[in-house]
Amino acid sequence: MDDDVQTRIKASFARQGAMQTIGAELTQIGHKMLEIELPFHDKLTQQHGFLHAGVISAALDTACSYAAYTVIANDASLLTIEFKVNMMSPGRGDRFLFRGEITKPGSTIIVADGRGYAIGDGPAKLIASMTSTLMVIRGREDIRE
Amino acid sequence: MDDDVQTRIKASFARQGAMQTIGAELTQIGHKMLEIELPFHDKLTQQHGFLHAGVISAALDTACSYAAYTVIANDASLLTIEFKVNMMSPGRGDRFLFRGEITKPGSTIIVADGRGYAIGDGPAKLIASMTSTLMVIRGREDIRE
Amino acid sequence: MDDDVQTRIKASFARQGAMQTIGAELTQIGHKMLEIELPFHDKLTQQHGFLHAGVISAALDTACSYAAYTVIANDASLLTIEFKVNMMSPGRGDRFLFRGEITKPGSTIIVADGRGYAIGDGPAKLIASMTSTLMVIRGREDIRE
Amino acid sequence: MDDDVQTRIKASFARQGAMQTIGAELTQIGHKMLEIELPFHDKLTQQHGFLHAGVISAALDTACSYAAYTVIANDASLLTIEFKVNMMSPGRGDRFLFRGEITKPGSTIIVADGRGYAIGDGPAKLIASMTSTLMVIRGREDIRE
Repeated sequence: MDDDVQTRIKASFARQGAMQTIGAELTQIGHKMLEIELPFHDKLTQQHGFLHAGVISAALDTACSYAAYTVIANDASLLTIEFKVNMMSPGRGDRFLFRGEITKPGSTIIVADGRGYAIGDGPAKLIASMTSTLMVIRGREDIRE
Repeated sequence: MDDDVQTRIKASFARQGAMQTIGAELTQIGHKMLEIELPFHDKLTQQHGFLHAGVISAALDTACSYAAYTVIANDASLLTIEFKVNMMSPGRGDRFLFRGEITKPGSTIIVADGRGYAIGDGPAKLIASMTSTLMVIRGREDIRE
Repeated sequence: MDDDVQTRIKASFARQGAMQTIGAELTQIGHKMLEIELPFHDKLTQQHGFLHAGVISAALDTACSYAAYTVIANDASLLTIEFKVNMMSPGRGDRFLFRGEITKPGSTIIVADGRGYAIGDGPAKLIASMTSTLMVIRGREDIRE
Repeated sequence: MDDDVQTRIKASFARQGAMQTIGAELTQIGHKMLEIELPFHDKLTQQHGFLHAGVISAALDTACSYAAYTVIANDASLLTIEFKVNMMSPGRGDRFLFRGEITKPGSTIIVADGRGYAIGDGPAKLIASMTSTLMVIRGREDIRE
């Protein structure tokens, strides 16, 4: 992993106001892979007190997008075109891990898959999966980073 | 629209910590339909300064889910099984509207569609759409509301 | 609707071996909209004797794609990047109608929505919906039509 | 793998008219996993002569569904609620392999993931992926097998 790529991803992640707001931390950057962790907080819940599906989506979308940043050119950027999320178990737990991985790299379209887990003392519990479609963007002033 | 249903939905929405955190307001409850509005804020952004896809998903998921609450029994509840979101335009604007509508009611599975718009002085601009699949839940102590 | 566009779509539809195989007919071409009809046949079923979800997907994908052909340049073509289908009622009936409509046109990415209905003497019954993401293709020898 | 389960799946697969029509063969049944193979044929194409996305969806849906049959009770059946398919490379090749696997078993909802490959002399090429949501059905006369 190129240091420049790591630096770029960390700086870009830090600009995501939404990640700050939910308290997400960028914990691992690998080749075609990235992990985010998130402590549970009451401010992130749906009506039953579980992690809100939108918060899960936010973390998975960010993990998938930055996994894709590890394979694009330095002067390119990415936009999320669409994603699908399956909620497999209620988002209960003290801490959550979200991993994004590139399934299909490409010069225009990148497909990534992500999985979310509740982590604690026992084995990690799969709570959600995402498939996301990303578009590589070049030469747009408003979409640089 | 039954007053009890409205009261129930408002109380349940108020328990969604995630909606408080993003600053979403429940602005309309109709038959099989519900609207949420959200002012733009820096704390809700992705790296280019647009509304984060996860925030859009959170608002659309909540709009779709509570649209479904307008058609279920008072002692039933709902869980989101899965959804798909298409991001159609960057989430730029001062204020956003998210509308959820029931496409297919059902005793076990409900399908809802949602649309998100940037609203301002001119015509509303479509920024995203969601299709979500919800499961009607009965008799579970931890999923009451 | 330009006659050239209609001619082009009809010729392209006729080249879809899969549409011939399932017995689909192109019944209406409108602006940003297209309809396909399909008679029920035993050769199109899943194990319970209903229309197979893959057949429903084939018809909806074709309807959505050609709806998009009504808005692209004559020298451009389209590829389906991805779609999501919700099966709302079992595919039971003598005849089915599939309508594709453009939700968001674009120079690179087009988003279309489709709905499938069982049609007969009574009111049409909604059996499925699709959201599909299409990519506009130019200048590729193998993707011309 | 219980012989009864294998027998049941083979009999059910044989009743899928759509699988006969496209020429699909059930080539492997494993625990929570199933494979289908499909020779290329002109009758399965979209307009550019590639395998139609609907045919890919049909094979992946069947592979995912029968992967789920390996984990449900003998008196239960399954219906596809929804799926999402990403088309990653044009469906070009002499022969295709579709593998479905259970990602999340459950008493009511099962989530499966599938992948499609073009196979030949060289390495298999990933052409598509699916995530599908299945509902376990019991006690319905019309949905037995």
